[in-house]
Amino acid sequence: MTDATSGMLTPGTLDLFSKKTRDQILAMSLILFNQRGFGAVTTASIAEKAGVLEGTLWYHFRSKKDILAAHMELLQTVFAQENTSSDSSDAEVIIEGIFRSYDVIWDFRYMLRDDFNTLLKAEDPELAKVLSINEFLDGWTEGRMLHAAKHGLLDFGQEDPEAVSEIILVLGRYWMDFSHKKYPEAEGSALRYKGISHIFTVLKPYLSKAAKELVSARLSA
Amino acid sequence: MTDATSGMLTPGTLDLFSKKTRDQILAMSLILFNQRGFGAVTTASIAEKAGVLEGTLWYHFRSKKDILAAHMELLQTVFAQENTSSDSSDAEVIIEGIFRSYDVIWDFRYMLRDDFNTLLKAEDPELAKVLSINEFLDGWTEGRMLHAAKHGLLDFGQEDPEAVSEIILVLGRYWMDFSHKKYPEAEGSALRYKGISHIFTVLKPYLSKAAKELVSARLSA
Repeated sequence: MTDATSGMLTPGTLDLFSKKTRDQILAMSLILFNQRGFGAVTTASIAEKAGVLEGTLWYHFRSKKDILAAHMELLQTVFAQENTSSDSSDAEVIIEGIFRSYDVIWDFRYMLRDDFNTLLKAEDPELAKVLSINEFLDGWTEGRMLHAAKHGLLDFGQEDPEAVSEIILVLGRYWMDFSHKKYPEAEGSALRYKGISHIFTVLKPYLSKAAKELVSARLSA
Repeated sequence: MTDATSGMLTPGTLDLFSKKTRDQILAMSLILFNQRGFGAVTTASIAEKAGVLEGTLWYHFRSKKDILAAHMELLQTVFAQENTSSDSSDAEVIIEGIFRSYDVIWDFRYMLRDDFNTLLKAEDPELAKVLSINEFLDGWTEGRMLHAAKHGLLDFGQEDPEAVSEIILVLGRYWMDFSHKKYPEAEGSALRYKGISHIFTVLKPYLSKAAKELVSARLSA
């Protein structure tokens, strides 16, 4: 990857992209869509940022919708990878999984944030897909919480686990948007860190002692 | 007020509107903007819902931006009213104030939700005003929390009050949007209730015993 991407995506997501032209275009468009929104970014600006001619971009992708489709495939690959460890009962693996899911959601945040009902047409096949990915990510987050509870890392006691999951989902989904508006000058990585700390502030009353230690070690790493 | 508004706005906000034509137009446009977004609502549909001719609407307001400006004035009046009790050290008044602020934010939610940077032009005076109202509401919420803490209703202990405030702000601001997408069939009043319960789920670990009782009495009322 070129220097332009360093710090803009988490290391785990950067690893998904090879040095090939097609992957460079995908990485740069992901960064631009996250920064400025899918609707506001032109293919010309993506080509410029990726250091290729616009014709080269057209050779790989016919439209921004094609790029969106490729990003969605990539996201599904990542979640398929995460899925292989999702049944683990190991506390460290479970906590690491929560951090990793958050990073992925952050790195692909334009898909959760932008209003595709306005950006795409009802007949675009990408519309149904991006809406179903949004639904999938909500279900996934709730599943991770219930899994952590099942293995004793979280104890909701009298609280309704669904309520706590919804609070986490709202934070995971909108913190990025809120924090960019509230702290326009802040670095993305600092805001990302603040968001995951907020999520664990909400979870703190329900975390087991062991989970609390793992989380604070991971947060101060 | 006509039947069309019942349940769409909280009683406290409904009280702001007289039976005069101008007020009917303001109430109906508030409901429509909240439901469908400022950008998607036409003056024709507002006139129809208010039961007046479009010419009558034009007599009172030259444009949707004029209606937005009137809503902003109304919101400022409401917060000026709330301000008269904002220094109270009475636990009941403080808790009631949190509920009332949430209701007002809910009733005027299109102002916090819609992206006015896209909907208005940079030179529209309404743009700067709506952005500053957003900033004001964030500061207000944080102020209410710190005030409650000062009077012993909240004790943040080792937690950072700013972190907890930001979590509440993200919930207050985005729950409406999230819940409408997640529960498209649900009644607005049920979603509003769920949102305020979620806010108190976050605050629960920090609430004093007296505050906890007041909150649960108010939530089950």
